[in-house]
Amino acid sequence: MAIAYPRFVCTEKSTIEEAIMTPSSSSSVPSPPPPPVFLTQEELKQIAAYKAVEFVESGMVLGLGTGSTAKYAVQRIGELLHQGKLKNIIGLPTSKITQEQALSLGIPLSDLGEHPVVDLAIDGADEVDPYLNLVKGRGGSLLREKMIEGACRKFVVVVDESKLVPYLGGSRLAMPVEIVPFCWKFTTERLQRLFEDSGCVAKLRTCKDNDEPFMTDNANYIVDLYFEKDIGDLNAASDSILRFPGVVEHGMFLNMATTVIVAGELGVTVKNK
Amino acid sequence: MAIAYPRFVCTEKSTIEEAIMTPSSSSSVPSPPPPPVFLTQEELKQIAAYKAVEFVESGMVLGLGTGSTAKYAVQRIGELLHQGKLKNIIGLPTSKITQEQALSLGIPLSDLGEHPVVDLAIDGADEVDPYLNLVKGRGGSLLREKMIEGACRKFVVVVDESKLVPYLGGSRLAMPVEIVPFCWKFTTERLQRLFEDSGCVAKLRTCKDNDEPFMTDNANYIVDLYFEKDIGDLNAASDSILRFPGVVEHGMFLNMATTVIVAGELGVTVKNK
Repeated sequence: MAIAYPRFVCTEKSTIEEAIMTPSSSSSVPSPPPPPVFLTQEELKQIAAYKAVEFVESGMVLGLGTGSTAKYAVQRIGELLHQGKLKNIIGLPTSKITQEQALSLGIPLSDLGEHPVVDLAIDGADEVDPYLNLVKGRGGSLLREKMIEGACRKFVVVVDESKLVPYLGGSRLAMPVEIVPFCWKFTTERLQRLFEDSGCVAKLRTCKDNDEPFMTDNANYIVDLYFEKDIGDLNAASDSILRFPGVVEHGMFLNMATTVIVAGELGVTVKNK
Repeated sequence: MAIAYPRFVCTEKSTIEEAIMTPSSSSSVPSPPPPPVFLTQEELKQIAAYKAVEFVESGMVLGLGTGSTAKYAVQRIGELLHQGKLKNIIGLPTSKITQEQALSLGIPLSDLGEHPVVDLAIDGADEVDPYLNLVKGRGGSLLREKMIEGACRKFVVVVDESKLVPYLGGSRLAMPVEIVPFCWKFTTERLQRLFEDSGCVAKLRTCKDNDEPFMTDNANYIVDLYFEKDIGDLNAASDSILRFPGVVEHGMFLNMATTVIVAGELGVTVKNK
């Protein structure tokens, strides 16, 4: 089910909060509309994140996502806690970066060992297909995200509209796979061969500054898969990847999102499973 | 196909090599049999390992196993290289311990990146079922073993007869699962719940000397699963375990062994797929 929210029209002075709270079409007193200001991708991310935080209730155990969109949600949760509008929140961070951010905002933290059932997680995604399957992990935190978001009753995904794809891999950007460093070259070649019918190219992710292999929070490597064509049955692809002994996890999040909030030039759309 | 070799009868002076080369029934000159000396488990392991090394030919790329039985095979390969009976061997060690042993014996080493196709691997196992499926990893090297042995044309498993079980898990000893340290308690509980119908108990492996979590060569933890009953469809169990995000690999080696050499009081039995 998809709900389309009205288009936001921001004046130069308006804040993201105002943009969410007062969409132009809900004005009670008719007045000449202000000249439209097109929103940046960053603003769209923030709008989607703030919308997602409306799902948060006091007393919840929350999965805190990682990445450029999720950070706005974490920031907003911190604000609402400080304002007293939310209480008794426990956060489970999905990365060391988010852990630091949450700590700096004073959000009480825990882990899955203490809280194996998570009420709600909010996180971004790199791709969303029409069935709400996701690609995640371009930021490198796919494993911790998948552990925590797989334990959630509700998983709300927040994206700007550039992340919508007709099929996973359709953005031609990376589908990440976390692998053990041992014999990484062998595993990389096997992954490429597994998807050769889809024109797959597999590349070890390296750090921008020194060309060393990028290291995840779990001290593993990431192989990025780039596809020319649809890989077909996603569940079969998932199992095939996981059967490789050197693979720890992959970035396809299948049948996990319960809600996807998409912020675009035409407003916010909420898609539910 | 199972070939039963005749029972070994060792005199006190006989060596393992002699035991393999001259089983009692092949004596050409009849003589009163010497009093039988029952072989220790250690001697049985050595006999099986030496028998496996007969499969090794000069020029081969070899997977070198890890553990109390495999070490005899590595030792024997080193001896044959020094004697000039084997040449141009390249070894791929399945653990840091085996790497050290092989280096000390002067066996040239490489890795899967350089040699993605392995001619033959020799390794021990903790359990062998009637279909030659294995449990491995009580020594903690299951991941590297599975990577290398999964890349082999021939995988020869060497065990003493105590390792034969009617079904995997049947020894009531550990079936190990390598997991990431992050939220290990959560993953351990999920694994136990997955097999609750088989009376599974899941325990984090700890070091004997300090009770700290045992750390694999890949800096992961091991959870040992103990079953009261048969877990049924092994391939389904394998996929279910691998789908947990915190799991790196498990110790079931399904449909991988091409030959199993079993040394027992009744002699050596060679079972082929």
